[in-house]
Amino acid sequence: MAVRVKGFRAGGIWAGIKKRGKKDLALILSERECTLCGVFTQNTVRAAPVEFSLKRITRGRGRGVIINSGCANACTGREGLKDTETIVREAEKTAGLPRGSLLTASTGVIGERLPARKIINALPRLVSAVSAHGWPDCAEAIMTTDTYPKLVHTSVRLSRGVINMVGVAKGAGMIEPSMATMLAFIATDAHIERAPLERALRRAVEVTFNAITVDGEMSTNDTVIALANGASGVSIRQTTQDYTLFSELLRELAGELATMIVRDGEGATKFVEIELKGARTPEEAKRGAKRIANSLLVKTALFGEDPNWGRIMATLGTAGIRFKPERVAIDVCGIRIVEGGVSTGRAKEKEAKRRLKRKDIEITIELNAGRHSTKVWTTDLSCDYVKINASYRS
Amino acid sequence: MAVRVKGFRAGGIWAGIKKRGKKDLALILSERECTLCGVFTQNTVRAAPVEFSLKRITRGRGRGVIINSGCANACTGREGLKDTETIVREAEKTAGLPRGSLLTASTGVIGERLPARKIINALPRLVSAVSAHGWPDCAEAIMTTDTYPKLVHTSVRLSRGVINMVGVAKGAGMIEPSMATMLAFIATDAHIERAPLERALRRAVEVTFNAITVDGEMSTNDTVIALANGASGVSIRQTTQDYTLFSELLRELAGELATMIVRDGEGATKFVEIELKGARTPEEAKRGAKRIANSLLVKTALFGEDPNWGRIMATLGTAGIRFKPERVAIDVCGIRIVEGGVSTGRAKEKEAKRRLKRKDIEITIELNAGRHSTKVWTTDLSCDYVKINASYRS
Repeated sequence: MAVRVKGFRAGGIWAGIKKRGKKDLALILSERECTLCGVFTQNTVRAAPVEFSLKRITRGRGRGVIINSGCANACTGREGLKDTETIVREAEKTAGLPRGSLLTASTGVIGERLPARKIINALPRLVSAVSAHGWPDCAEAIMTTDTYPKLVHTSVRLSRGVINMVGVAKGAGMIEPSMATMLAFIATDAHIERAPLERALRRAVEVTFNAITVDGEMSTNDTVIALANGASGVSIRQTTQDYTLFSELLRELAGELATMIVRDGEGATKFVEIELKGARTPEEAKRGAKRIANSLLVKTALFGEDPNWGRIMATLGTAGIRFKPERVAIDVCGIRIVEGGVSTGRAKEKEAKRRLKRKDIEITIELNAGRHSTKVWTTDLSCDYVKINASYRS
Repeated sequence: MAVRVKGFRAGGIWAGIKKRGKKDLALILSERECTLCGVFTQNTVRAAPVEFSLKRITRGRGRGVIINSGCANACTGREGLKDTETIVREAEKTAGLPRGSLLTASTGVIGERLPARKIINALPRLVSAVSAHGWPDCAEAIMTTDTYPKLVHTSVRLSRGVINMVGVAKGAGMIEPSMATMLAFIATDAHIERAPLERALRRAVEVTFNAITVDGEMSTNDTVIALANGASGVSIRQTTQDYTLFSELLRELAGELATMIVRDGEGATKFVEIELKGARTPEEAKRGAKRIANSLLVKTALFGEDPNWGRIMATLGTAGIRFKPERVAIDVCGIRIVEGGVSTGRAKEKEAKRRLKRKDIEITIELNAGRHSTKVWTTDLSCDYVKINASYRS
């Protein structure tokens, strides 16, 4: 199926930032001005493109995004910010857009300057390369250690017609070796104002990109941008049934992209869903689930296919959440191995061990302390993770 | 040099908790009633021996500690607490002590019951085995995945005479595979009241055992207990020069034991000292340093001997501390590789890379945001860590 969203063009080329002809420069362009909003890293150390886009996005309108991989342009000081400004300005000129039209994002090694001249020289080629069918090239050009491009396309019939939505993302977890790390761009031809779009985006990000973790690291460059150009002619207002459907679509698409990122986690041999139930508050649910997802001892046990629930209990106890250990129940792949805070016996544990040989694992923890639940997605931790991250720059 | 602290006897035997005749039961006994205080895990999930000792230590006086390895008696419910109570009571009877004389600690696998009958049967042998020279056996009997016993002995001349101090510890970092994890016992023949002893102990623990991390895990059983029996005849009062010397001695001894734990870290190939300077508050200094020490990306880079400062910057930015990235400086083994938040160039980085081949690594981060500093000690993260922790129970 051809990926297409009305009024959008996208593409990706090799500009020479990466070695050996691998695509490293991408452009997403709307034929008309569109609504724009974004969610950015909470890291105190923010890359130049994040600083740039954060300022510019306050307008809420624009024409697109230029993205490079191979260099994060993070920890590069004032010169780094100037590089970003120059490149965006030149891209706008080359594409015949007014100043202030483009946002930007970068991903790659931290601490190195962008090869601005190479990128500027490649802009005419980039602008001619974008097309309505160029999304796969775009997805490829934003990859770093990803082993496959991440592209999702969907559409839905609303009360006034069909809208299309496409999303591209990169990231092999939040885990990349000084690669700065997770980017996603979602474009739709729906017509929607900034406030409802931003609300739908923030809610979607919270339960998708913000609910995955591979190693608990947060990058200097994390960026999610949504673009809506209205080219479908279908208008969406908040508080309507259409808005609910649109928000669900956005959440599903973001969820698929987030899942693709986890499945591409460096060295991962397992895809793990952790559900924490019965917490006192939504925050405690998330904190507890994330803590377990980031525990080295839990992750290495999963790699070893060992239903080592003692590690889950010990980790829960350090998460700063309120619960009584003697009320906790734990299920691994549908087998209840802990009840009332203690083991349910060797037979159950043996069955759980057998099921841990699967690639997709579900762990459910019932705290019995309240009525809030959450799900997060993660990977195991393998020797390959260590090898990849120990040798990355050498 | 023979390890001896006046009026204390110690020892360790095999009771059959572990396999193959490895020592697993230890006893520390004071000939007279002594001052006792302790510091215990902050984990919400606390093992039965921790619950037991927490209650009993409020008295501040007692005769000693019985310790077992091979089983943590954690997540074992009411039965687990009963096992602990029975064993301690039987040990007191066997040693001819009044009820309420002994504290206890356990370390080993979480979620399994103690073999109470085996332990009780071994008590007469244990009580006959303790002697003034039995500290090495005691140190050996509390080991789990430790590759060597951890024993430190020291003495100092105070204004009124010489006091002796001995410490034993176990733990291969805070990292053990569902082994519950770090225990230390420090005995001195000084005479000191509970309040000043506890104050000195808490301060010492803060900058030693609480300043080490191997994988950011906190156990259900962590326990540090200090015993002071006054058998040297040397009395120490707070606000004296002697108290200052005593506190320093205690801190040094705890520091040596903590260092031994880090050096025995599972799979560790490096011993890493991280100093964070120029933080706004002591809490922020510690939070920042610990965050870096626990970062998988920093630890795998150290394993790979790669001065990947971008990972340090990115991690700092997620620690929830106040600083300006453009004021940060980073030294690796004495080489300044970051100044003003940016690289000092390839040559410096190359030299730092060369020095990272050493086993002992120092990383200094200057935030230039305030005047508070701290040091923490950690290891790198190697493939062996993953292997050890993936296969532990299988």
